Amino acid sequence: MDIKITRAKQLKNKPDESNLGFGHYFTDHMFVMDYTVEQGWHNAQIVPYGPIPMDPASMVLHYAQETFEGLKAYRNHDQILIFRPEMNAKRMIASNERLCMAEVSEELFVEAVEAIVDYEKDWVPSAEGTSLYIRPFCFATEAGVGVHPARAYKFIIILSPVGAYYPEGVNPVKIFVEDEYVRAVVGGTGFAKCGGNYAASIAAQVKAEKMGYTQVLWLDGVHRKYVEEVGTMNAMFVIDDEIVTAPLEGSVLPGVTRDSCIQILKDWGYTISERHLDIDDLMEYAKNGRLKEAFGTGTAAVISPIGELSYKGNVQIINDFKTGELTCKLYDELTGIQWGTKADPYGWVKTVK
Amino acid sequence: MDIKITRAKQLKNKPDESNLGFGHYFTDHMFVMDYTVEQGWHNAQIVPYGPIPMDPASMVLHYAQETFEGLKAYRNHDQILIFRPEMNAKRMIASNERLCMAEVSEELFVEAVEAIVDYEKDWVPSAEGTSLYIRPFCFATEAGVGVHPARAYKFIIILSPVGAYYPEGVNPVKIFVEDEYVRAVVGGTGFAKCGGNYAASIAAQVKAEKMGYTQVLWLDGVHRKYVEEVGTMNAMFVIDDEIVTAPLEGSVLPGVTRDSCIQILKDWGYTISERHLDIDDLMEYAKNGRLKEAFGTGTAAVISPIGELSYKGNVQIINDFKTGELTCKLYDELTGIQWGTKADPYGWVKTVK
Repeated sequence: MDIKITRAKQLKNKPDESNLGFGHYFTDHMFVMDYTVEQGWHNAQIVPYGPIPMDPASMVLHYAQETFEGLKAYRNHDQILIFRPEMNAKRMIASNERLCMAEVSEELFVEAVEAIVDYEKDWVPSAEGTSLYIRPFCFATEAGVGVHPARAYKFIIILSPVGAYYPEGVNPVKIFVEDEYVRAVVGGTGFAKCGGNYAASIAAQVKAEKMGYTQVLWLDGVHRKYVEEVGTMNAMFVIDDEIVTAPLEGSVLPGVTRDSCIQILKDWGYTISERHLDIDDLMEYAKNGRLKEAFGTGTAAVISPIGELSYKGNVQIINDFKTGELTCKLYDELTGIQWGTKADPYGWVKTVK
Repeated sequence: MDIKITRAKQLKNKPDESNLGFGHYFTDHMFVMDYTVEQGWHNAQIVPYGPIPMDPASMVLHYAQETFEGLKAYRNHDQILIFRPEMNAKRMIASNERLCMAEVSEELFVEAVEAIVDYEKDWVPSAEGTSLYIRPFCFATEAGVGVHPARAYKFIIILSPVGAYYPEGVNPVKIFVEDEYVRAVVGGTGFAKCGGNYAASIAAQVKAEKMGYTQVLWLDGVHRKYVEEVGTMNAMFVIDDEIVTAPLEGSVLPGVTRDSCIQILKDWGYTISERHLDIDDLMEYAKNGRLKEAFGTGTAAVISPIGELSYKGNVQIINDFKTGELTCKLYDELTGIQWGTKADPYGWVKTVK
């Protein structure tokens, strides 16, 4: 891929690494590429981060033909590492297919991610627990108000130096089990990382926060009883000696961290089951102590212990609201691989040239 | 509302009224207004139609916090008429509430619609069956990649002179009953006019078109058997002496044309039932002749006769693929009221000053 580079006339001051938050700062440059039916993907550029002129009839603003991804670059002294970018590329291909959008090939996706991260490598922070969040996204730019697959798209990558996703850090979060709103249903777009899923989720998130909870746990939209995923994470439950997570049947997002955790846990000899889990059973396991640990998995927060579940007024504390032993071990292993401080037997980590 | 006006330096040539299509042309100006948590809605303007500069981290491009409306202005000689704009305003309030977006009040919505239509009144076409499609839409402009309700929005109105929505005109369309994809489920966003619903629907629409069908008929997402709505219309079925349409229980869009048809049909003495209709029963009624007529209702196509239903390989022709008597009568009545050629006992039509 031939990338035309336009350097920003003035570079920004880097933010204080001890107080980055999540997604508040953006780097000096972004990657931008255009698609038309006639030309395919073309016009790959690295340009100064800044406004994009959008026709008001751009279909993304009306019919939400938009998908995104999230991954991170980690600093290990002079090396910049990225984690399984091909998994994000594959998921974006699946998301775009579901929304009838132009495909960004795996090769193109990974090359673009590496190019912009390499160009902005000074922005990868070095303080403990910090990283450079990478946000590739794709959206319909064709102008028109008929409902049909757009004939023009943009693929953009922006970068944001980030600290911990939760202000709580790696401490247990309180989760509200949502029984009014539904995130996704089989036959819908639950497995796709598309804007509409997130727009639909905000009301439940706001409701949970008002009651003092950090995120919601979604139940399936048909039976309203099987555990699916947490707001921005997949969820795993250690029940007796079994680790349970929702299966990928179309309504759950196939998380890269989820997949990585499953592989690590299997290699450690754990029994991990991708199966339906009835919320009533889960609450009962939490009550009678069979639920040893629970945690969320996701790129933003990596591993996030769940310390409390609230469902229809039934509140259960998990593991005395302490981060569990396995949760800790998994967090250490995975972040160790990601930051390059532990061996990577899986070949997951890629060094950006 | 104080609206600042900036006139376009050069006005466009008006398109040929006999070949407008739907949503291909936009007028010279648009209405734009901004919202911030601090200032509320402010900066109301009529400006030349043209690109809006958007931060690449604008939340609408990632999390699809976006809603829209559709209504029309009709020309009756020198008078410009609009149809029940307060219904669209109320629906946008409900849509924005579901997506945790800033509310555009009914008063503000209607005033803005009237102002831009009045300013662009030369664009309301006069050829038979043509009108000026009005597209108010609202979206999140805050820049950031955390998932939460945005703190900044734009509300924009663009206008497009249109002909018939379907190239077929008021002729029967072929409808494919979708049994793989799901549009909406109770607890989701089906009742809201938000981008995500449309993004999710495109795959089914593409599939139907490939098989020679004009649109899909959606089934409910839980039981996968109750008839909900057609791609861009609500659906009504004349079964014996009863007219049946899906009830508004959260997964169906509350159409303005649907509501208007229900009122007219009731006044004409028909029995109209908002109730669940099993697709197997419907196909049986179509087969044994109890299904007399079927039609879609929506702003874009007004009333659109359904001439064929295809469900799991079972193809049934309705009313010999001819537009039914009641369908015709309803179309004439409603378009008559809309264009001001028939009496409006409901007070639905508003003259733009």
